[in-house]
Amino acid sequence: MIKVALMGTGNVARHLFDAFMEHGSIEVVQVLGRRNESLEYFIKRAKVAVADQFLEKADVYILAISDDSISQVARSLGNLDGILAHTSGSAPLEALPKTGRRGVFYPLQTFTKDFSVDFSKIPFCVEAENEKDTALLVQLASTLSDHVVEIDSDQRKGLHLAAMFTNNFVNHLYYIGQQICKEHHLPFEILLPLIQETTRKLEKLSPLDAQTGPARRRDTTTISRHLEMLKDSDYKEIYIQLTNSIQKTYGQKL
Amino acid sequence: MIKVALMGTGNVARHLFDAFMEHGSIEVVQVLGRRNESLEYFIKRAKVAVADQFLEKADVYILAISDDSISQVARSLGNLDGILAHTSGSAPLEALPKTGRRGVFYPLQTFTKDFSVDFSKIPFCVEAENEKDTALLVQLASTLSDHVVEIDSDQRKGLHLAAMFTNNFVNHLYYIGQQICKEHHLPFEILLPLIQETTRKLEKLSPLDAQTGPARRRDTTTISRHLEMLKDSDYKEIYIQLTNSIQKTYGQKL
Repeated sequence: MIKVALMGTGNVARHLFDAFMEHGSIEVVQVLGRRNESLEYFIKRAKVAVADQFLEKADVYILAISDDSISQVARSLGNLDGILAHTSGSAPLEALPKTGRRGVFYPLQTFTKDFSVDFSKIPFCVEAENEKDTALLVQLASTLSDHVVEIDSDQRKGLHLAAMFTNNFVNHLYYIGQQICKEHHLPFEILLPLIQETTRKLEKLSPLDAQTGPARRRDTTTISRHLEMLKDSDYKEIYIQLTNSIQKTYGQKL
Repeated sequence: MIKVALMGTGNVARHLFDAFMEHGSIEVVQVLGRRNESLEYFIKRAKVAVADQFLEKADVYILAISDDSISQVARSLGNLDGILAHTSGSAPLEALPKTGRRGVFYPLQTFTKDFSVDFSKIPFCVEAENEKDTALLVQLASTLSDHVVEIDSDQRKGLHLAAMFTNNFVNHLYYIGQQICKEHHLPFEILLPLIQETTRKLEKLSPLDAQTGPARRRDTTTISRHLEMLKDSDYKEIYIQLTNSIQKTYGQKL
């Protein structure tokens, strides 16, 4: 049985909590939050408290809080017997005080309120400072997921940056596509099969091989026609930058 | 029974041919190509010819050829009794000669060699100049797909542009993500669950609501850290442009 205490009440905390509660080999001994209301989600299933220090003993204390507050909150916690781990993709292990056992417990996923996720498929990236602590975090993560990897803080920073491009920025391109559809009185849903196929291809093809379209084909007629159509100067700039980058990748500039 | 003749031997032609051949209510009367070798794919299952004119009578003649050659090839075909339809997302109906019955038969999908697609889920966008011709193209498309829409050339151009952002450019962001992974000695596959989730969310959430990440959160610490990490000036420029565009969308500039 691994005893876990959780600080934080946002999307990551809620999703982790739900996942922990599903497994008999994990006990959530306490959830801490800043306000009573935000603890409501947890109150029926675990001990909760409005507190800035953990009141129960645990093997792993998880900080599921915003990147910016990790250092400050961690310092205020005082000495803990277990591992103190944050869940951030971009904060280094060193954001935690070096006086204690510190670790990272980073689920590589985008969490949205009321949108359930299947943790078994989510890669967990763990990091600690010695084999014993690493083993414990691996054990905890493996209870939830089939994909647990040990990576260091530098690699995790790279991974987080890569995720910016493949998740945050990709979603914004979906948004731009939706705006263009709106302008032409078309339902955005018409694009979904194409979007799904673009993703599905990655299972068998590298993105280098999967690239299609006017930029790669050097079809300047279509590119000029598209640039004429784009009224929004930001979208036009994004179009030009991405087209240039594709053409450089395949050996020719715009 | 709808008789179809096909000109073209590339990915779109092959995928359409395979789909047509699956349906007893469609007869492919002939496939034309420019070279014998490129016709090999079709030869066992249909009449083929190296020719620049259709030799068999059909209800619908489909030009599955590159956008740039549509006008020229179409002009050289002479008078046809059936509908002459191209399969392009960006070429207008008017790319075809106005002396004949003309139409557009555009499957909104990305086709890759040796990568099978399920046509029943692919939206078909059809256009013609009168009700009778539209009805015939709708009937043909409906045999293959559950999603048939009638849209005009202007809408189709908009749709094609939206598809650039949501397919071509998205794939390039996957490529950039892969390069960043490589640089940090991480397998790209680790990002696949996140990528799949980003797509899956669209079924329930609009991209406007699904947006997460440092750009939307105005987390300037993380953004600066990312910009420092990006060595490639093109990727850096793309990062800045997309971050700016996200921040404008949610009400703040970088």
